[in-house]
Amino acid sequence: LRTEVDHRALKRIGRELHACLEKRESEASVRARVAQLATTYTALGKEGRAAVLQLIAAELATPDEVAFRAANEIVAAPTPRARADAVEAARAALEPPWVRLLTHFGSLSDGVTFLADVRADLLALAAGDDELRRLEQDLRRLLAGWLDVGQLELRRVTWDSPASLLEKLADCEAVHAVRGWDDVKNRLDPDRRFFAFFHPRMPEEPLVFVEVALVSGLAAEIGPLLDPDAPLLDPADADTAVFYSISNVQPGLTGISLGGLLIKQVVDRLRVELPRLKTFATLSPIPGFREHLAAAGGLPDDVAGLVMAGGEAPAPPPESAKTALLQLCAAYLVSARRSDGRALDGVAGFHLSNGARIERINWLADLSPDGLRASFGLMVNYIYRLDDIETNHRRYVSDRAIPASSAVEQLARAGTALLGGS
Amino acid sequence: LRTEVDHRALKRIGRELHACLEKRESEASVRARVAQLATTYTALGKEGRAAVLQLIAAELATPDEVAFRAANEIVAAPTPRARADAVEAARAALEPPWVRLLTHFGSLSDGVTFLADVRADLLALAAGDDELRRLEQDLRRLLAGWLDVGQLELRRVTWDSPASLLEKLADCEAVHAVRGWDDVKNRLDPDRRFFAFFHPRMPEEPLVFVEVALVSGLAAEIGPLLDPDAPLLDPADADTAVFYSISNVQPGLTGISLGGLLIKQVVDRLRVELPRLKTFATLSPIPGFREHLAAAGGLPDDVAGLVMAGGEAPAPPPESAKTALLQLCAAYLVSARRSDGRALDGVAGFHLSNGARIERINWLADLSPDGLRASFGLMVNYIYRLDDIETNHRRYVSDRAIPASSAVEQLARAGTALLGGS
Amino acid sequence: LRTEVDHRALKRIGRELHACLEKRESEASVRARVAQLATTYTALGKEGRAAVLQLIAAELATPDEVAFRAANEIVAAPTPRARADAVEAARAALEPPWVRLLTHFGSLSDGVTFLADVRADLLALAAGDDELRRLEQDLRRLLAGWLDVGQLELRRVTWDSPASLLEKLADCEAVHAVRGWDDVKNRLDPDRRFFAFFHPRMPEEPLVFVEVALVSGLAAEIGPLLDPDAPLLDPADADTAVFYSISNVQPGLTGISLGGLLIKQVVDRLRVELPRLKTFATLSPIPGFREHLAAAGGLPDDVAGLVMAGGEAPAPPPESAKTALLQLCAAYLVSARRSDGRALDGVAGFHLSNGARIERINWLADLSPDGLRASFGLMVNYIYRLDDIETNHRRYVSDRAIPASSAVEQLARAGTALLGGS
Amino acid sequence: LRTEVDHRALKRIGRELHACLEKRESEASVRARVAQLATTYTALGKEGRAAVLQLIAAELATPDEVAFRAANEIVAAPTPRARADAVEAARAALEPPWVRLLTHFGSLSDGVTFLADVRADLLALAAGDDELRRLEQDLRRLLAGWLDVGQLELRRVTWDSPASLLEKLADCEAVHAVRGWDDVKNRLDPDRRFFAFFHPRMPEEPLVFVEVALVSGLAAEIGPLLDPDAPLLDPADADTAVFYSISNVQPGLTGISLGGLLIKQVVDRLRVELPRLKTFATLSPIPGFREHLAAAGGLPDDVAGLVMAGGEAPAPPPESAKTALLQLCAAYLVSARRSDGRALDGVAGFHLSNGARIERINWLADLSPDGLRASFGLMVNYIYRLDDIETNHRRYVSDRAIPASSAVEQLARAGTALLGGS
Repeated sequence: LRTEVDHRALKRIGRELHACLEKRESEASVRARVAQLATTYTALGKEGRAAVLQLIAAELATPDEVAFRAANEIVAAPTPRARADAVEAARAALEPPWVRLLTHFGSLSDGVTFLADVRADLLALAAGDDELRRLEQDLRRLLAGWLDVGQLELRRVTWDSPASLLEKLADCEAVHAVRGWDDVKNRLDPDRRFFAFFHPRMPEEPLVFVEVALVSGLAAEIGPLLDPDAPLLDPADADTAVFYSISNVQPGLTGISLGGLLIKQVVDRLRVELPRLKTFATLSPIPGFREHLAAAGGLPDDVAGLVMAGGEAPAPPPESAKTALLQLCAAYLVSARRSDGRALDGVAGFHLSNGARIERINWLADLSPDGLRASFGLMVNYIYRLDDIETNHRRYVSDRAIPASSAVEQLARAGTALLGGS
Repeated sequence: LRTEVDHRALKRIGRELHACLEKRESEASVRARVAQLATTYTALGKEGRAAVLQLIAAELATPDEVAFRAANEIVAAPTPRARADAVEAARAALEPPWVRLLTHFGSLSDGVTFLADVRADLLALAAGDDELRRLEQDLRRLLAGWLDVGQLELRRVTWDSPASLLEKLADCEAVHAVRGWDDVKNRLDPDRRFFAFFHPRMPEEPLVFVEVALVSGLAAEIGPLLDPDAPLLDPADADTAVFYSISNVQPGLTGISLGGLLIKQVVDRLRVELPRLKTFATLSPIPGFREHLAAAGGLPDDVAGLVMAGGEAPAPPPESAKTALLQLCAAYLVSARRSDGRALDGVAGFHLSNGARIERINWLADLSPDGLRASFGLMVNYIYRLDDIETNHRRYVSDRAIPASSAVEQLARAGTALLGGS
Repeated sequence: LRTEVDHRALKRIGRELHACLEKRESEASVRARVAQLATTYTALGKEGRAAVLQLIAAELATPDEVAFRAANEIVAAPTPRARADAVEAARAALEPPWVRLLTHFGSLSDGVTFLADVRADLLALAAGDDELRRLEQDLRRLLAGWLDVGQLELRRVTWDSPASLLEKLADCEAVHAVRGWDDVKNRLDPDRRFFAFFHPRMPEEPLVFVEVALVSGLAAEIGPLLDPDAPLLDPADADTAVFYSISNVQPGLTGISLGGLLIKQVVDRLRVELPRLKTFATLSPIPGFREHLAAAGGLPDDVAGLVMAGGEAPAPPPESAKTALLQLCAAYLVSARRSDGRALDGVAGFHLSNGARIERINWLADLSPDGLRASFGLMVNYIYRLDDIETNHRRYVSDRAIPASSAVEQLARAGTALLGGS
Repeated sequence: LRTEVDHRALKRIGRELHACLEKRESEASVRARVAQLATTYTALGKEGRAAVLQLIAAELATPDEVAFRAANEIVAAPTPRARADAVEAARAALEPPWVRLLTHFGSLSDGVTFLADVRADLLALAAGDDELRRLEQDLRRLLAGWLDVGQLELRRVTWDSPASLLEKLADCEAVHAVRGWDDVKNRLDPDRRFFAFFHPRMPEEPLVFVEVALVSGLAAEIGPLLDPDAPLLDPADADTAVFYSISNVQPGLTGISLGGLLIKQVVDRLRVELPRLKTFATLSPIPGFREHLAAAGGLPDDVAGLVMAGGEAPAPPPESAKTALLQLCAAYLVSARRSDGRALDGVAGFHLSNGARIERINWLADLSPDGLRASFGLMVNYIYRLDDIETNHRRYVSDRAIPASSAVEQLARAGTALLGGS
């Protein structure tokens, strides 16, 4: 099988793509063609795939003249009723033919999984290409529709789960990399919970997962949670559930937000299973902290030195820098914003829009190279208080308000003063 | 609980409907509102439901000025690229807000079932009301998308199936009414097959079903098939599968065609299970025959008399009218068309567009009052030949060609002459 | 297929039976032979089956001389250790070869179901035939072992259960005969519970079932419970669960008591599902009352008249006989015993040995012909009090103590006096 | 919790054991006691368990006088019928009370699993203790009855199986030890099959498993089969299924032979799945070969040297010894017998009694230390020919005939001559 696609093969693929959209084709015939096209696409290499996607984006977009004519009908409609009819007609006319093609693919038995992979390809290619971006956006909308939240299934993952599933989840752990089967088993210990979302349209494919440790008191460092030799706690004695890792499994589902719902459903489920749990919180990385400081001026000397030292062979920061770093970190989390007002830190933005609040910043909490490099070993606890989630969410969405504990707010004021004093 | 809705209650419902579309609402909050609205709607009587649907159609349609502005952007776009951007923006702008509302309902755990019921309400109300018709059409498209064929599940129904399911199917049998549990059991005998389509989005709800008799030779009358005391045939000895009833269960899914696919999947499945089967055919009613003759002139006297005698206490037609009726019936099935060229007879149109051909017309085939009234007791066999299905389908869709056996074609020519000779 | 068995066929069956017990046969070969024998047996008529069973009982019993020799070894053993060895040898020697044969049958996939049917045949034949009775008793022990309580599965039966199961249960209802599908559906209403025991060794075969009505206050008559038009009660409002029918489904399992365990498990399950339930009681027939009175002397005249009137076209008893009948019935239930001290009334014996107590006797409680004939329309409530079940059971088993409410005891004393005063 | 048992605790356990056998105890009460006893036993250490088992063996055996009396009744019976009655009574009387106790344990939900563990304890203790051996033998019979072949379930194990199951199977691999998760995954590759028997009475516990490689031609060495980097074969191209490992998982089921049935069912299943397979054979170790030679005289010098060199740091045998070793090995497999005529080599005996034949002896086939130590690296292929299995089995069981290929027979004759020539 040749994995690249020559001019002739591409023409043949193009003919097949158009044939799938012909009205007189029976449903069975279209399904057969589409299934064959999916097989062909999957066998292609990177360049072949790009060529096919560009072909679709170019040939199955809404034709300019069709759009013009449909819009004109609306503009020229003499009565509201005529306008409404024209709107209805225009909605069909403006929809790019690729939507119907993608819908055919989505109907295959593994179609949604296939299209999630196609979207991963598109995301890698779309930068700077408006047509591919439009195709990618339509595919995102379709995937979001098929993977509707009403059918999401929350499954607990345990040591009794299929080895193939555990292997896949371990490969996708994006926050704290998995170091072998002992590490996997440790994360499935009796004092742990591991949940994933599945959807019937992508059977056997986990979409997103979360790892939870059941502990006494709010966890302040990640090391003990990842240590296979740490003593077991009886889950019935735990008062706190710490969400220490949330990872997407499907790169093709980027931008289809499932993590927030996962946290909410897991909280609901744990409250039923373990009524003694009082606190639901995260122990989260602060991925953008050092980078943010690097762009700031007026830092205390030792902090500036740490920032300059950069990512090579990072060492734990000295105790002397503790106060300044905690203050600067609090200020970063509470005040640093993107242009649209959202929190600059991606992880912070995720939890804040879910209705969490910033609870505590932890010193020497993640001494892994990644943790030291990104945030000098600092980690943060976001806390989910059932009574406040809805209000926090609304205030963050409407007013970009970022809630924090009084301790963190105090640190943030000091941190802001530190920077402002420069 | 009051089942009708007063002005105040309607205003409250209106506020809730709008609240569901507000951006700052969290997903959980929207779900709760929508679930409450579904409960409220279900509890309403006919008038209350109509009021709510009219409210949605009126307040959540695409606003006229929004449509105008979006269309103008397309028309005025200075470059193809600007046009493409304007098209993308217009697609979002032209979509009536009710689409998002309906999508929220569809995400509830029983949401699709609920919306199928809503659509049944809409179909009853929409005649002559353009706004309701547009809402109904959007709902049809959404339902068709959710109930995608890729996830349809073909299930065999047997005497081991849930009694509640058998009861529901018996209630929905639209072709040959079920006369009690003995009749149900007879239709599930070892020499019968009973299949239904299910879909995960409407769990436990059959969508459409088909009843099949396994027989020797093409069945020519319905009576023996419905007779509980008829002798059993060993299915392994049967050479013919007769589809003698196809019924939709969900009135809200009218226009979402599943019957054709059902027949194809059942044929495939029976071919595997019973390799001796050589013929797959129907024994079908001819619902519009008498009515069609009533509008025709130049009928032979005895046929005219039968047509005039109408539907009251119908008796089997006399043998003397046999030749003329068979000829006229063949002509009706082969030549009578709707304005768009499709077959005038609804059942004929269904099987022809699935790729069947008209095989044989049967005399004294259905002596039930309904059968005598609609078609003087005549029934027709449509035959599904695997090798011809795709061609028949295409030729019917493209050219409106209606395939028939040579015997039927000969009858049809005579029937046409009979009418034309007047 | 001939259903009776001639001499030659019987000889062939005999050879096969012996072949199944030969050591050198492989397991696969034995299974094939045994499966064939089961098919042959099932196809036989009554006389053929009797001939086969007599063959087994005659030829596969413990040979007299084998038994004698094995016993002699025990008697003659010179030391305790030699005796123990001889006992072990004798246990194998005394076991009739039919035990191994039956065990082979039991290993077939439907083997236990087949053997339950065989035992039903044996029970019908065994009266007066010692050899068949011994075979039947060994089969009872084997069946009881295979159908061990640890694997019994309690399943709720509902209107969503298979129609074939509902049909089978309706056919087996031994207490209050089922009068059609409406009656079945009524007994599965939301204010009813219907439970059956299943066992993996008899897949799809219910073993015994119980019907429960959820009511307010202790039910005093059966009519409303069997009336499909009776109003529904919200189960959450019920304070009493009335067990109004317990029936065995498998005649071949007679003497393998499962009903008591069924009641206990249903009580446990209902207590969890409906915590408001306070009373668990039966509404039971009194099958032996009239027959018992017929043998008694010294009855009041009107009661004697009722007893004499016998079973033909029974009418409800006159109010004038109420007091005497209630007293006599209480005396019957509390005092009438079998020779081994158990309660004479079979239903009473069943509930008493399960740990119930006699709570109340109800006047005009079952006006069906059967009810009037057996017990003049009287029914009794046995009550299951969780705290007393174990004590009641032990006292009944050890001391034959029959617990009753003080009201019933008072009636019983009066009833005894009535009879004693003659 | 103290894990050892003192005198007082033992007395309490003894009282409980007896209480479980009292007639007046209700079933529920007995179950509760027995469940508690199982928990207590499981928590005990080795000595505590031994004390409990000795208590049962001593106190719940058949009492000497009971046995004597029952035997006497048989001996003294005046008529055949009286003898038959006495036999029936004796069967109950001779059964040790521990049988009823064990049966109670077996009814617990995990009872059979528990008793399998108990039997493993007994097997370790019973050597030289007649009473414990009798208890162990009764337990073996009970376990064999509960784990009847009719309910055995053959499950394919794949990389999608639970990680916990794969871990357990890897721990139990007795033939070729598993060296980590990569090794596990290799044995579950697409060109492998891995099957295990499960039984509903020991849910989630595999009983015995077999590993199969799908290859082209009869495999002659084990190395490539265990090499994770060996190339994959398309299973559809394979003509031979090589069973390269069969292991029991449950030490408590020793002597309850399931491996032979497992092989037969796997052969049946593979023949359906992969109709191209023509040869079903093993690649088996020869565990007793070196040990057997060590006891033989008259060996050629270099072979004698190899035998003497013994098990320390074994090296592959020199090519010069090849002919003699192959001949001696063939003679060992074909002719060396136990006192009862069975093959001396345990693995040979297993496959021969299943109906296999000795096909080929392979030189340098297993170069692992174990393989070199036990059989100088030689392995043997036993072949399962469907048409011969039943005959081979019967001839081995009846006449102790050991079938071999002509090549092996020729080698064996030479080997016998070699030894006989001494």
